[in-house]
Amino acid sequence: MYVVYHCRHARSLRVVWALEEIGADYELQVLDFQGAVMQSTDYRAINPFGSVPALRDGDHALFESGAIVDYVLARAGSGLRPGPQDADFADYLMWSHAGEATLTAPLAVIARHAMILPPDRRAPLAVADAHERWTQYADALAGRLAGRDFVAGPRFTGADIMVGYALHLAEVLDVVGAAPPRLHAYWRRLRERPAYGRAAAA
Amino acid sequence: MYVVYHCRHARSLRVVWALEEIGADYELQVLDFQGAVMQSTDYRAINPFGSVPALRDGDHALFESGAIVDYVLARAGSGLRPGPQDADFADYLMWSHAGEATLTAPLAVIARHAMILPPDRRAPLAVADAHERWTQYADALAGRLAGRDFVAGPRFTGADIMVGYALHLAEVLDVVGAAPPRLHAYWRRLRERPAYGRAAAA
Repeated sequence: MYVVYHCRHARSLRVVWALEEIGADYELQVLDFQGAVMQSTDYRAINPFGSVPALRDGDHALFESGAIVDYVLARAGSGLRPGPQDADFADYLMWSHAGEATLTAPLAVIARHAMILPPDRRAPLAVADAHERWTQYADALAGRLAGRDFVAGPRFTGADIMVGYALHLAEVLDVVGAAPPRLHAYWRRLRERPAYGRAAAA
Repeated sequence: MYVVYHCRHARSLRVVWALEEIGADYELQVLDFQGAVMQSTDYRAINPFGSVPALRDGDHALFESGAIVDYVLARAGSGLRPGPQDADFADYLMWSHAGEATLTAPLAVIARHAMILPPDRRAPLAVADAHERWTQYADALAGRLAGRDFVAGPRFTGADIMVGYALHLAEVLDVVGAAPPRLHAYWRRLRERPAYGRAAAA
């Protein structure tokens, strides 16, 4: 039984979503964002960076949403994780990483400087720059989706969970509206998955 | 034969480093940072986000440094990439992802707002906030290294390449000085690897 440390709208949504897709058994620990638990020594022993998500799997503790999604899919032997022998391996890897390192990065800057930091520490120029990058990246992602239902191969994979969270965050930040229609159609396809619905409600 | 698209001091250093570690055959294409090639339609067909690194492997094209490092190590069947059956699998995954998503993220903000953007678009408050986060993360990484030579398991792995690039960038940005001695010792251990030396000189 996995234990998942989660905050609403945080990257831990990816972990809950992945566990719901594969029907894994898990217990949810919902934390206050940047609250006392996340600052505590006990929690730092699980995740030294004091962020969510974290996962406990028996004696193992993991952090980083991209690592945990890959880990739980591997442990389940799930077809949502193409391996080195599969045609979609390269695409799975690159879109899994792009979901965080490219697509979520500017959104995290917007979240930080438009919502999370106290007003006197916010940098509007950083928000403007990140918004411009996000717009370019959303266009590039829409280009990728021409003639495709999912980012890596013909079927839904963990890479869609990694990219899908960026779109979830973009919606929370209200910056998804101007994206190309093809991106909206993809995001609707992801949102309609029952596992996403259960994760978003968690 | 791999073709690697590289800019000096960019994340593509990870790819060159990994290829040097495993002795793979590759051709290097050194691009001007944000130059004409990176903006071109031909390059966007390889990497729609117009960034480095990108890798060509026959008919396959990949982008995202974390994906490419994992891919080339998997293709080589390298022991630098623990698999699901190995004890260090979870640690390999989480530190590989942390190297980019946690450790490099604030450094990328500093690079952007202290070096890359034109002065009238830079946000000093974003640099200050990112510097504070980097300092906390460097402390947490130093804590992880207590009694360890490498971040995941007893041996050098691809996770050290992912984390090591963050330290390379921190040095370029001149923010590594105040880090705990244990972090300096780790960084020295990585820098002394011949494969890192060849990659940094590329």
